[in-house]
Amino acid sequence: MKFSETFIPTLREVPGDAVIVSHRLMLRAAMIRKLSNGLFAYLPLGLRSFRKVESIIREEMDAIGSLEIKPTVVVPGELWKESGRWESMGEALLRVKNRLDSDFVVSPTAEEAFTAIVRDELSSYRQLPLSLYQINTKYRDEVRPRYGVMRGREFVMKDAYSFHTDDASQDETYRKMGRAYRRIFKRCGLTAIPVRADSGAMGGTGSEEFMVESEIGDNTLILCKACDYAANVEKAACKPDFTAPASIDAAKAAAGSTPAVEKIDTPHVRTIEELCAFLKTGATQFIKTLIYKAVNVEMDLSAAPGCTKLKQYQFTPNASPVYPEAFFAVAIRGDLDVNEVKLAAALKAAEVMLAADTDVERITGAPVGFAGPVGLSTVPVIADETVTAMSDAVAGALAKDLHYTHAAYGRDFNPWLVTDIRTVVAGDRCPVCGGDLYEKKGNELGHIFKLGNKYTKSMRVSYLDENGKSHTPIMGSYGIGLDRTLASAIEEYHDDQGIIWPITIAPFHVIIVPIKYDGAVKAATDSIAAALEKKGVEVLLDDRNERPGVKFNDADLIGIPYRLVVGDKNLAGDSPKVEIKRRGEKDSRLAELSNAAEELAASVYADLAELNR
Amino acid sequence: MKFSETFIPTLREVPGDAVIVSHRLMLRAAMIRKLSNGLFAYLPLGLRSFRKVESIIREEMDAIGSLEIKPTVVVPGELWKESGRWESMGEALLRVKNRLDSDFVVSPTAEEAFTAIVRDELSSYRQLPLSLYQINTKYRDEVRPRYGVMRGREFVMKDAYSFHTDDASQDETYRKMGRAYRRIFKRCGLTAIPVRADSGAMGGTGSEEFMVESEIGDNTLILCKACDYAANVEKAACKPDFTAPASIDAAKAAAGSTPAVEKIDTPHVRTIEELCAFLKTGATQFIKTLIYKAVNVEMDLSAAPGCTKLKQYQFTPNASPVYPEAFFAVAIRGDLDVNEVKLAAALKAAEVMLAADTDVERITGAPVGFAGPVGLSTVPVIADETVTAMSDAVAGALAKDLHYTHAAYGRDFNPWLVTDIRTVVAGDRCPVCGGDLYEKKGNELGHIFKLGNKYTKSMRVSYLDENGKSHTPIMGSYGIGLDRTLASAIEEYHDDQGIIWPITIAPFHVIIVPIKYDGAVKAATDSIAAALEKKGVEVLLDDRNERPGVKFNDADLIGIPYRLVVGDKNLAGDSPKVEIKRRGEKDSRLAELSNAAEELAASVYADLAELNR
Repeated sequence: MKFSETFIPTLREVPGDAVIVSHRLMLRAAMIRKLSNGLFAYLPLGLRSFRKVESIIREEMDAIGSLEIKPTVVVPGELWKESGRWESMGEALLRVKNRLDSDFVVSPTAEEAFTAIVRDELSSYRQLPLSLYQINTKYRDEVRPRYGVMRGREFVMKDAYSFHTDDASQDETYRKMGRAYRRIFKRCGLTAIPVRADSGAMGGTGSEEFMVESEIGDNTLILCKACDYAANVEKAACKPDFTAPASIDAAKAAAGSTPAVEKIDTPHVRTIEELCAFLKTGATQFIKTLIYKAVNVEMDLSAAPGCTKLKQYQFTPNASPVYPEAFFAVAIRGDLDVNEVKLAAALKAAEVMLAADTDVERITGAPVGFAGPVGLSTVPVIADETVTAMSDAVAGALAKDLHYTHAAYGRDFNPWLVTDIRTVVAGDRCPVCGGDLYEKKGNELGHIFKLGNKYTKSMRVSYLDENGKSHTPIMGSYGIGLDRTLASAIEEYHDDQGIIWPITIAPFHVIIVPIKYDGAVKAATDSIAAALEKKGVEVLLDDRNERPGVKFNDADLIGIPYRLVVGDKNLAGDSPKVEIKRRGEKDSRLAELSNAAEELAASVYADLAELNR
Repeated sequence: MKFSETFIPTLREVPGDAVIVSHRLMLRAAMIRKLSNGLFAYLPLGLRSFRKVESIIREEMDAIGSLEIKPTVVVPGELWKESGRWESMGEALLRVKNRLDSDFVVSPTAEEAFTAIVRDELSSYRQLPLSLYQINTKYRDEVRPRYGVMRGREFVMKDAYSFHTDDASQDETYRKMGRAYRRIFKRCGLTAIPVRADSGAMGGTGSEEFMVESEIGDNTLILCKACDYAANVEKAACKPDFTAPASIDAAKAAAGSTPAVEKIDTPHVRTIEELCAFLKTGATQFIKTLIYKAVNVEMDLSAAPGCTKLKQYQFTPNASPVYPEAFFAVAIRGDLDVNEVKLAAALKAAEVMLAADTDVERITGAPVGFAGPVGLSTVPVIADETVTAMSDAVAGALAKDLHYTHAAYGRDFNPWLVTDIRTVVAGDRCPVCGGDLYEKKGNELGHIFKLGNKYTKSMRVSYLDENGKSHTPIMGSYGIGLDRTLASAIEEYHDDQGIIWPITIAPFHVIIVPIKYDGAVKAATDSIAAALEKKGVEVLLDDRNERPGVKFNDADLIGIPYRLVVGDKNLAGDSPKVEIKRRGEKDSRLAELSNAAEELAASVYADLAELNR
């Protein structure tokens, strides 16, 4: 294709709001243009790369037997009311009323639509498993869209949903998806890190995120220096740095040598640091106790301390009953932080937050700063596993300026629930190999989840088993953001001059730059271009009447993997030559004109094969 | 692909609201499912055909050098306010407010978005012409969506927009688009009729619609039995069945032998029929005069009778000034009907409608039924061309129970504007060859328009010419509905058993039906399927454990062009055979097993080549 026949209005300058590399380069290379905050149009060059990412994803989905369908972008609000997300999704959900006053949603994701489609067709276990996907427009009403297409309002996502009779079948599809995702990112040239992830607002357990390292990432990743352990900090675990007793009796026994719990005066001492200084000891000796409020708690609290008066509500006909609001005391070793995502998951709560001071005072009977597990009966106590190893600890005494010393787990207090709720940090030990853990910022490109029956139950999907008995299928959900994948490739592959495309998603394989598109140079240029195109190589021919420097700069900016320069000097003489340069490499080389197309095509094929392997 | 590995839940029955063939068959063949009124999901089988239509369109657009881009589906309301369509588009435009209270539109068409993109990049005449397109989701908030995807709320459209410095350049792109459209419909197997069309709400002049015949069509087409003349009735012309005088003087001269105009009593006579009976003459002798109200009239009325007090308004900063409301008397030969689309175009009005009785009484000074051009000075008179040939006519006399006889054009009245505003009907003569015209109902699949500067002017697009002078480019707009194209192919190609796909857009080329997928039959089936797939033939292998009758019925229903049956009987013996049947043909034939794949692949290639020629 000739440069003059396409539309590539490259820019020297970019608007100041483009702060990250991919955003700047996508604008400068004329891949995208902004229509409005968070709304971007792809221009021809950008769309060529975009379509290649789309094709790679489609091929890999088809290869694992997922079937492409196309629901609408605008979907009935009714479906979202059935699932309960009409209420729970918040303002990121773009809601629309049409002229007949019916409710619609501009889909941010499509669990509801796919579940509704399958619900109407499903009758027998013989139809399962079923794996369906779409590659379609999505809209998320971000308050502060930024970083170009990396976090836009409208975007394209591949989202797949699978339906199963049992866990084994779900596991198999989940594994296939994981393998397909690894292949997709590899084929796009991306270094994606699969991490264990919390499933967040989607519900369910068992999920993996595919991350790329990014300074502007929304996620903190915990990685092991020694093995391939990788987890989102929201779910990261670590090797215990304590020895937990085997049972509550063992804990009591371990407390045998500890003096009886004692109430001591701690005037004007509220923080862990102040306590450490006051008692001349370390933070690991303290039980930090925080009062949390949890919203929409699914966990059964009927037997929990202080919860007898709580009432469960069922907000939508098929949703699980929840406690709209409940309070908890959360105890953890003094040197650690509570991971609120783990806490919410443990409580099966939609959200958890630190309680207001007035609530803390009501619950602990003391000002903020004196909460502790000993003698606390107004709310259930949730303890991190670290607390179980504490047989001689300091804790708040539920009264102003008073703490307990010699508090022992099992002897002086018995939490309602013990679980892992610590936030893992750099320096902790890897839960798999014990290696050193470190942190990175990451951006999510893809996410695969096991959803369980969250949607199939609330939306009343059922099938009959071989005995004619009705069951609710379980479900998986698997997404990849196309725009973000494309932008991430630029984040990973660029230099000061511009983009350096992985060849599989480059808009063209080769750019031919004639020094002056005229005479013998034009003839040689045209013949090489024709020869390359005949071999299936995608060629951009820069036929513009511009100075060579301008053309070279644009070639570097738009990042075409191979540049072939045709000039008078090299063409002259007995063995006419052309210059070939790989984008990102420093040196060019000369090739015989007669052999250049063949040679270059071979390089292109080899590069493609390497990534698609 | 194996039937058991896809998702084709065919139906025996269809919901009662599916009244047209394509809607019924798309549901029954499991191509689509309804998500809500006017919102349909494509299932795997339907999407395969849909993608083929999409590919054909993309190939033909690329072939004429139009460049694909991808604006967003949700676009800023600001752009629609600039063009003025935020106000003028009515309730079919789905407007959305986001969480920040900004206005957005779920695009029904994209003149605004494309114009905005080009506006920001355009500087020099050297960048023109420019032709851009998208294939993207659209939404139109139909009050009464029906006929399945034929008139849904959400749909996919290919829309292209071109920008030019002059008419010659616009004409060239317009012609190329016309040729591409003819090829697209031919490749899809469709008998599309290109008709001259009114450009309706899009504005501008010069447009062609691509129609398919359809009983449920929204459009009436006027076609010639003798030549290829075809026009939308809204714009159809016909050969004059009268002799118009060459000039107003010639008209006066022609009236020379006519007695002076005379006022006669016509008590209790109001309709043309009653007048005919009363005066014992034919309707062609009468001048029918109707009072019309026109809205947003762009035509200059400053010198028109009765219009001196009218004021022009400019509703948006760059829009042309209009008269919000103006009245006209419209005169036409008594046997004919006024074509309101032609009338609106002649007046450059957004809309025209018959005036209310009170307005008629005010304007004519008489009850309804006595309007006429003679002596009328309160409003401009618009006359159809037929009136110019009337030199001895009957007309209303602007007073109750009175008519004029012997009224002559040029002598007794001189209309402010004479133009063609008659509705052409079956039986009129072709304007090209004089042949017999007839009517058909049609559905629009595509439309190409010349828009002039309607959007580029209101949205302030400009470029500099070779002398550095600023100009407004002109613009063309070209759309094709993908869903409707697909459904129309089914409307054209089906029988009582199901769909009969044109091979270019069939979901698969061949369906192989083993009588029982087992033993030797399975081996033969698998080997033929593999051989065909190796040759690039798309095969659906019905491996289901169903009775042959069920499989044959489904094969007919989903309409795969070739059916290959493998059964024990034909495989037995020295020269094993399989049965090949073309969908839609009555008879099958036997082919040697050893040769079947080769033979069938050759047929598939030939059929594809024939349509893609």
